[in-house]
Amino acid sequence: MLTDVTAFAPATVANVGIGFDILGHAVDEVGDRVRIRRIEENEVRIRSITGVAGELPVEPQANTAGRAVQAMHATLSPGFGFELDIEKGIPLGSGMGGSAASAVAAVVAANALLHAPAAQLQLLKFAMEGEIVASGSAHIDNIAPCLYGGLTLTVGIDNPRVKQIPVPRGLRCVLVHPHMYLGTREARAILNINVSRSDYVWQSANLAGFISGCYSNDLELIRDSFNDVIIEPQRHSLIPGFKDVQRAAMSAGALGCSISGAGPAVFAWSAIQHAEAVRGAMVAAFARHDLQSDSWVSLMQNYGARVVKA
Amino acid sequence: MLTDVTAFAPATVANVGIGFDILGHAVDEVGDRVRIRRIEENEVRIRSITGVAGELPVEPQANTAGRAVQAMHATLSPGFGFELDIEKGIPLGSGMGGSAASAVAAVVAANALLHAPAAQLQLLKFAMEGEIVASGSAHIDNIAPCLYGGLTLTVGIDNPRVKQIPVPRGLRCVLVHPHMYLGTREARAILNINVSRSDYVWQSANLAGFISGCYSNDLELIRDSFNDVIIEPQRHSLIPGFKDVQRAAMSAGALGCSISGAGPAVFAWSAIQHAEAVRGAMVAAFARHDLQSDSWVSLMQNYGARVVKA
Repeated sequence: MLTDVTAFAPATVANVGIGFDILGHAVDEVGDRVRIRRIEENEVRIRSITGVAGELPVEPQANTAGRAVQAMHATLSPGFGFELDIEKGIPLGSGMGGSAASAVAAVVAANALLHAPAAQLQLLKFAMEGEIVASGSAHIDNIAPCLYGGLTLTVGIDNPRVKQIPVPRGLRCVLVHPHMYLGTREARAILNINVSRSDYVWQSANLAGFISGCYSNDLELIRDSFNDVIIEPQRHSLIPGFKDVQRAAMSAGALGCSISGAGPAVFAWSAIQHAEAVRGAMVAAFARHDLQSDSWVSLMQNYGARVVKA
Repeated sequence: MLTDVTAFAPATVANVGIGFDILGHAVDEVGDRVRIRRIEENEVRIRSITGVAGELPVEPQANTAGRAVQAMHATLSPGFGFELDIEKGIPLGSGMGGSAASAVAAVVAANALLHAPAAQLQLLKFAMEGEIVASGSAHIDNIAPCLYGGLTLTVGIDNPRVKQIPVPRGLRCVLVHPHMYLGTREARAILNINVSRSDYVWQSANLAGFISGCYSNDLELIRDSFNDVIIEPQRHSLIPGFKDVQRAAMSAGALGCSISGAGPAVFAWSAIQHAEAVRGAMVAAFARHDLQSDSWVSLMQNYGARVVKA
């Protein structure tokens, strides 16, 4: 019986430009780690939060990882408690799915300590409870790819269905995080409550083209469809230099470039041979706007959150 | 050198419920035929219109088939003229893509008379010129599946890209046309100019799920995604008994049921073993609302418009 387990959960790019609130993919090069020890006391507590932790609360009910494990604990009643050490690799307010990653790493680690582990779909729902703490509503476009890996589509909220979409081989994600904070709530609050019918049709065509291109290995169709005409135009001014970064990525050979989640991180899809050039161009463009940044080049075909030490 | 050619073009189901203005599929069991003879006079003229022709204009510039062939004639300057006999199999104002079928059959027939036939994409654009006569704007969600066959996605208008989406084997389309007329312009005029953001997200998930389900043979996902939350709720009251017809189709085992194009025809997707029961249930439901109807059960994997006699 395991008593001490550490799980890793990757950063994620939600929306993927054209799939607002429904698409997301994992970025395996960066993520959060949660170590959980089995304790006698029948409770959930947080012992430490380290890494790029900022001002995260240590009260379990106010912490995304703590709240997710509390939901799991309350539902499954394992007869013992959990003590968490959270190691943040994902910066707060970055648009890289940090709250989802902490919640998912926590439930994956806790699950490994159970006599009868829960199914993935149940873990998804526990992690969603944690996400509510962070964003105020139950979005799963970060949680699903974080838990399952790869590129995921989620249909439905109450009974979410997660579908993994194939990503053409040879593609990489370039993720660039400029050093600034942007709150998810703020980035959501500026969005119009309505969408024009013509923009809805245009975006639909792009979404359908993107999904179709992924299934059929049609990189040209992916590139032509990789154009968010609804959310990006409303949000990009929150990110200094976004348009320059996007132009730089495209000029360097990216298939598409948009805002990761609610930003300020910006991501691009690129053929492997252009990925380093795309990364360099994006970092340089942010630097011209006086923003230093971290950056990663990652596969998108991966296995999601997993136990890394037991 | 051919001098007398007849082409067939199938009826089409535009929108396919969740893909407003971008998806469409062919229904090979019913369609229009256009016979074209080469004439010495360097002009385009219509000799006859037969079948379920209603009040269609015989002036070429006011007729969808005539206008499409005029556009072709003006662009390609073949040095001779075309005389058309149009045989309508598709009722006017039915939502079954009749204007597209006449235009497509005409350009396919005319193309077979040319020394240097035009490419499919060029035929698509000529047929669009004809569609403008009928609907007032250049929609290609009927024209693309009519010309290419199968289930098609169109991305872009000025430089349309047509992508064929695979339809899982063993599925059939049930198409039921109640005997009433509904104008496309009227059915468009009632649509709201805006869509709520939450409906847009919901519909996006359904569209992406539908496309994904088609590629991955996931009938359960197709069924769960087959739900138009934007257009159908605004239009269904134009069709007496629509909700009863839809319920009847679903109870008989359909995967999904919605309005064909702008209606009043209603279509359902169904596994082959339930297709006849679905058809019977839909026809009976319309009859309870005092509407007689014609109905067809069709494959969706077909080859689109084609020369049938030369």
